[in-house]
Amino acid sequence: MKIKKLNSTQIYKGEFISFYNDEILIDDKIKTVREYIIYPPAVGIIPVLENEKIVMVEQFRYANNMFSLEIPAGKILDNEDLKYAAIRELEEETGFRTSPENLVKLYTYTPAISYSTEKLTIFVAKNLEKTEQDPDEDEIIKVKILSLYEILDLINENKIMDSKTVLAILMYKYSFMEKYGEV
Amino acid sequence: MKIKKLNSTQIYKGEFISFYNDEILIDDKIKTVREYIIYPPAVGIIPVLENEKIVMVEQFRYANNMFSLEIPAGKILDNEDLKYAAIRELEEETGFRTSPENLVKLYTYTPAISYSTEKLTIFVAKNLEKTEQDPDEDEIIKVKILSLYEILDLINENKIMDSKTVLAILMYKYSFMEKYGEV
Repeated sequence: MKIKKLNSTQIYKGEFISFYNDEILIDDKIKTVREYIIYPPAVGIIPVLENEKIVMVEQFRYANNMFSLEIPAGKILDNEDLKYAAIRELEEETGFRTSPENLVKLYTYTPAISYSTEKLTIFVAKNLEKTEQDPDEDEIIKVKILSLYEILDLINENKIMDSKTVLAILMYKYSFMEKYGEV
Repeated sequence: MKIKKLNSTQIYKGEFISFYNDEILIDDKIKTVREYIIYPPAVGIIPVLENEKIVMVEQFRYANNMFSLEIPAGKILDNEDLKYAAIRELEEETGFRTSPENLVKLYTYTPAISYSTEKLTIFVAKNLEKTEQDPDEDEIIKVKILSLYEILDLINENKIMDSKTVLAILMYKYSFMEKYGEV
């Protein structure tokens, strides 16, 4: 298969999101359009306390008009190292600090592969130390500490809607724990 | 928490994606902006053959410039019933047909909760009958039939990047099979 880009139009340049419309030619014969957004890489963190409970955050998600229970997460800043972004977001959103050697990479994936360039990397974080929560001014975040099984129950009832949280928790339970054992 | 919408601007109206920039006021004091896209509901299907193998599709994903192995999926047409959309997409992309009573809903989630209204519902499909593959003209799709364990191995090596496929396969393996047993 051969893809030729005929035209790329930047429709919008936002603070974080840029929106494009490209005209492409497939195999020299099919002319079509791809609409997509360019979005920075992001990180999600599963913060595991010594008692094995997990630090979650609940926040209002405007685009979907819902309160959402999620693992802490965020976009990287300009060229920021993924582990440092994870440590920064974890502390900002939950008030727990850790250091790079306490992070294990779990998975990297594309949340919306057909229309967003976002790549999200999930880490498991341990050896957490309590500091101060310091969310961005426009993030209204409530910290909630739950056991893995409480979270799995919520997933079992389809009460968690956020893809990174469902994917991360299932992978933590069924892949990470097989490799690394219980905490 | 109180959210007041001050302004909503439609930046772009595409065939499937509309892009918005809203100015909002949080708790009568914090003025900020939310950039997001309005996207139709979508469906993903785990098509399980009688020999327990799973029908996957490989396609080129322009926005992410990669070939991607995925479960069949697609957007619903105007007000289309989710099960009918699943049956239609399954047949178009793979050439396998099934009927509504052979679909079991597995999960509904938001792939990109902070910036897309998309809600994706995953079904498990059984009792498949071979017909003809009929993808959209601009979809270049290759059908690949794999065992669940071959797919889990690929996930274990982080070789599947698509969120719906990772989430669906983990959930199928660890939740669906516990409730419904092996096929």
